[in-house]
Amino acid sequence: MSKRISDDDEVGKEADIRSGPSSNRQVNPTLQQEQPYPHQHQVHKVGVPAKQNLFKEFRATVKETFFSDEPLRPFKDQTKRRKLVLGFEALFPILRWARDYNLTKFRGDLIAGLTIASLCIPQDLGYAKLANLPGQNGLYSSFVPPLVYAFMGSSRDIAIGPVAVVSLLIGTMVRDEVDPIKNAHDYLRLTLTATFFAGVTQLTLGFFRLGFLIDFLSHASIVGFMGGAAITIALQQFKGLLGIKTFTKKTDIVSVMRSVFNAAHHGWNWQTILIGVSFLAFLLLTKVKKKKKLFWVPAIAPLISVIVSTFFVYITRADKEGVAIVSKIRKGINPASADLIYFTGDNVIKGFRIGVVAGMIALTEAIAIGRTFAGMKDYQLDGNKEMVALGTMNIIGSLTSCYVATGSFSRSAVNYMAGCHTAVSNIIMSLVVLLTLELITPLFKYTPNAILASIIISAVVGLIDFEAMKLIWKIDKLDFVACMGAFFGVVFISVEIGLLIAVSISFAKILLQVTRPRTALLGKLPRTNVYRNILQYPNATQIPGILIIRVDSAIYFSNSNYIKERILRWVTDEEEQLKQKSLPKIEYLIVEMSPVTDIDTSGIHALEELYRSLQKREIELVLANPGTVVMDKIHASEFVELIGKGKIFLSVADAILTFAPHHEEP
Amino acid sequence: MSKRISDDDEVGKEADIRSGPSSNRQVNPTLQQEQPYPHQHQVHKVGVPAKQNLFKEFRATVKETFFSDEPLRPFKDQTKRRKLVLGFEALFPILRWARDYNLTKFRGDLIAGLTIASLCIPQDLGYAKLANLPGQNGLYSSFVPPLVYAFMGSSRDIAIGPVAVVSLLIGTMVRDEVDPIKNAHDYLRLTLTATFFAGVTQLTLGFFRLGFLIDFLSHASIVGFMGGAAITIALQQFKGLLGIKTFTKKTDIVSVMRSVFNAAHHGWNWQTILIGVSFLAFLLLTKVKKKKKLFWVPAIAPLISVIVSTFFVYITRADKEGVAIVSKIRKGINPASADLIYFTGDNVIKGFRIGVVAGMIALTEAIAIGRTFAGMKDYQLDGNKEMVALGTMNIIGSLTSCYVATGSFSRSAVNYMAGCHTAVSNIIMSLVVLLTLELITPLFKYTPNAILASIIISAVVGLIDFEAMKLIWKIDKLDFVACMGAFFGVVFISVEIGLLIAVSISFAKILLQVTRPRTALLGKLPRTNVYRNILQYPNATQIPGILIIRVDSAIYFSNSNYIKERILRWVTDEEEQLKQKSLPKIEYLIVEMSPVTDIDTSGIHALEELYRSLQKREIELVLANPGTVVMDKIHASEFVELIGKGKIFLSVADAILTFAPHHEEP
Repeated sequence: MSKRISDDDEVGKEADIRSGPSSNRQVNPTLQQEQPYPHQHQVHKVGVPAKQNLFKEFRATVKETFFSDEPLRPFKDQTKRRKLVLGFEALFPILRWARDYNLTKFRGDLIAGLTIASLCIPQDLGYAKLANLPGQNGLYSSFVPPLVYAFMGSSRDIAIGPVAVVSLLIGTMVRDEVDPIKNAHDYLRLTLTATFFAGVTQLTLGFFRLGFLIDFLSHASIVGFMGGAAITIALQQFKGLLGIKTFTKKTDIVSVMRSVFNAAHHGWNWQTILIGVSFLAFLLLTKVKKKKKLFWVPAIAPLISVIVSTFFVYITRADKEGVAIVSKIRKGINPASADLIYFTGDNVIKGFRIGVVAGMIALTEAIAIGRTFAGMKDYQLDGNKEMVALGTMNIIGSLTSCYVATGSFSRSAVNYMAGCHTAVSNIIMSLVVLLTLELITPLFKYTPNAILASIIISAVVGLIDFEAMKLIWKIDKLDFVACMGAFFGVVFISVEIGLLIAVSISFAKILLQVTRPRTALLGKLPRTNVYRNILQYPNATQIPGILIIRVDSAIYFSNSNYIKERILRWVTDEEEQLKQKSLPKIEYLIVEMSPVTDIDTSGIHALEELYRSLQKREIELVLANPGTVVMDKIHASEFVELIGKGKIFLSVADAILTFAPHHEEP
Repeated sequence: MSKRISDDDEVGKEADIRSGPSSNRQVNPTLQQEQPYPHQHQVHKVGVPAKQNLFKEFRATVKETFFSDEPLRPFKDQTKRRKLVLGFEALFPILRWARDYNLTKFRGDLIAGLTIASLCIPQDLGYAKLANLPGQNGLYSSFVPPLVYAFMGSSRDIAIGPVAVVSLLIGTMVRDEVDPIKNAHDYLRLTLTATFFAGVTQLTLGFFRLGFLIDFLSHASIVGFMGGAAITIALQQFKGLLGIKTFTKKTDIVSVMRSVFNAAHHGWNWQTILIGVSFLAFLLLTKVKKKKKLFWVPAIAPLISVIVSTFFVYITRADKEGVAIVSKIRKGINPASADLIYFTGDNVIKGFRIGVVAGMIALTEAIAIGRTFAGMKDYQLDGNKEMVALGTMNIIGSLTSCYVATGSFSRSAVNYMAGCHTAVSNIIMSLVVLLTLELITPLFKYTPNAILASIIISAVVGLIDFEAMKLIWKIDKLDFVACMGAFFGVVFISVEIGLLIAVSISFAKILLQVTRPRTALLGKLPRTNVYRNILQYPNATQIPGILIIRVDSAIYFSNSNYIKERILRWVTDEEEQLKQKSLPKIEYLIVEMSPVTDIDTSGIHALEELYRSLQKREIELVLANPGTVVMDKIHASEFVELIGKGKIFLSVADAILTFAPHHEEP
């Protein structure tokens, strides 16, 4: 094995001479011909990289933080005119993909567009109800926003419009401020204000490239939140489904159930129940998995049931029997609503608060959908650009009587399965909605609310992702706690609280992760020079007189003190054991630094304190394989001089070779 | 080299068979005798550790988070009675160290105690002034709290009493609520309320073992904050030093300087200036570095100057010439003050707010001091137990007319240099203060405020740590930004704002760290099987058709998406380069997982998406050396089945051996 080691030395030496961040990388296909090897038996240290200059360092950080996706890459060395064109294309991706748009693509988009249209119209009516808004506002939100997105958005598969969760959020949060029945007008105004600020929030996040902020809502907590929201929404539908007149304003399961059973003996309307339940059964039936090419069955089922039930009610005049109906939907396209938005008074603050929350949730949903499908078709999606698109879309929406719109899970899936190619499918959809608004809205007069209720229920059941929950349980218990926390928070308390729980657990996890990194005791794998965690490789053995500890994280102020004390605890434990077994005491502590990718001043201090404490115990501190940045800083802080130049090695094997040569492979 | 590799294989095999978290660790002194080696030429995979059970996992997390210092360790297998005793000893460490207390120790403590007493008495008067409180409250705070701490605290070197920064905080924050001159009584009451809640905060943090929270205030920002506070405090002293009557209430440098110069032509009092400046010069002179055994010179200088100047003023009656004097200090020990604390009304909220801030700052300072000296003498310091002690101390203090007390940098240093052994030095000090209160307070009548001002100035200059700032600049530029942010925030705006800046920059840094981990492109060090960052080792060469990327962080929801996209960007860049050089395209992407110490559900998803995107590009995903936890979860999530069992290796070298054997060392 001496050969291998002397090679290592060579490396060390070469590194010593040649290292420093330069990137003259050559791919060398004739590596194995580099013969013969030198055979001397000495160990060299890790190379010291050349000093990074402040500006470069700073710029690198900023770049990785805000421009990690290199949005300006295409602009590199281009003419001014070209840059302008590219800029426009970046803002309006349609300019790019429209060029090579063709008939085959259009066929796909047309089918997809019609399908999602048939799905969205009934859903819009239901979701609008969920948000305590008149039906037409739901339809409005499926007309203007999709058009705007088609021009600015970069996802090809997302289907834009009102969605269940956001509608619920608006419905509950705005109702806490204004009564939707008593003063419907103010309610609408506040909703539009919230929508406006939701758009502003999204636009701002995107513009300042703060997109990564939504990554702080962990997948687990989103799954939990969505599931909880779905249940809450379904519960809300009992009102329509059972034809209950007086229903609680609260959304938690307890008070909903109470008001359901309180209404039992007088409030339920059997005709309503009959219609609602039968159609719900029909809708759920169509959802049962079938061949992929039958995707359109569940997609158009809602529209069919609306038509059938409406016709049925019309001829039987069941509404006279107490079957609640939509009764009135305003005809015509979106009226301008700029004058309705509050820009003064404390309604602005309320609107802002609600808008920020709704905007963030809408964003999370849209980005999640966008990424999923972008992954499936392997095209890049710039999160920040998406946010700008969604933001603009909602701002314009708020000026045209729409409430917060975003990407819908269910409809996007249908859109994808129906074989859409571009955002044109959204344009088709919004055109269909346009026609609906212009021509056939009056026909919805006799649509029973029960149908809308059953449509919503059949739509939201898909949001409860048991598979994901099971997987989370299997993979990460802490994640599962976050997931369930959000879930039960929403179901038993309220949507906002559930959201709060989700966010705070996510953050708690981050703090935990940065305060309490792992450390591992390393052992030597028999007959090798590989050192691994002795818990993972029980056959790894320790070398007498030497303790090898790996620190599994960058050392920052948030964990430096913990790491120091944890290492000292390893040492203490070990020393106790050795005393019991009356084995030779520890002489060297080798800290394997490979995973320590960065260190700050607090970290350096911690190392210094560690060094001093070890001195008191007559143990020598040795570092193995510190990375570029760490070497940088260890040198800058003169820590090297403190522990002695001879104490930093390219690898644990090298260190062992120096301090316990007879334990190295011959 | 084939030998080495076949060894690796052996490992692989053994790991495969034997691995799984068990801890039968044997230290094997006869390692080198394990001969001979098998010579076959195959590669085996990483072993799968046995499943961790939920409870164990959860308990481990909780333990590392809240009980990482194993406070209950001594209680392990002890009798009930012994446990009780140990419990008392844990609460009152004095019970432990008092046993082996002896005369030599006492000698040290006596000298140290007297020294810090002589230093603290004048400082107390000054700091009380800084907090807009009558002088006696300063002395009170050096009498009761040190006694309490002596019984409960576990640091042997810390000197307890009022400190500059906290006094400034109280002074400014309470003054924003109540006018200290117009209604001095309410001012005192609010201060005591704040002190009470400061104590409660500290006690709570300690009791619930949330001590690690103060680690979130980074060293850098503390240095900056302290420096800024020192300057602000010094500026405040112009009032006393120049004998200015009308002085601004603001603390920022601009408004202070303005009111200094506005007062220039009439407000300055030359006698005051004469006394103040001359003694300041004297005090600063004594601070010039001397032999270590002359530590007492700067320590007693303040007391001397107080005595001399007081006597001087007394005989010359300079106070008639407009030299402001202390004039009145109440005689006798601390009066009870429980009835003065607000427990109702909105003063409670105010007091609470101020208390929390002051309490945290006091805590940070005390713990920092405690750790420093504990490190120097190598004894463990339980942060949480310290907090309980400090909390109790301040609560009792608030009931006996003391304001927030904590460990003082300057006095603790003197205490240490004077050769203290235990907290007895604190007891000595408080006894001296007791005598002072009982007998000689009236003598302070003629002490000129100018002296107190110059004493404070000479005390706080030590808080401006230029060395540390320079070091921070050298080591970590981002830390330096945090440091300067806090510094200028305090100097130019206000103490609270400076603090806010410090905290937020610290947090921003954490978020940055968890969202944007580093990744590195690895190359093969010539004539070895070691793979290292090609930026650190420019002589490392890549293997044609294979891309090796190391991910330098655990993969969590906060960074999973970034890591995925970053890796894909590496691939894209590489493919472009290869195309230009018309070299063979990438067939395998090896992800070196050594630093990836943990992964959550979002992380697994990211890996799956990465795998899919790579499939589209006809690149095979390979993992090298995933740790215990990661192996666990990769198996739990069936990700192994997805990428194929044959795609996880013990080391990069093994992977290369499999996919590009001719590039391995022969």
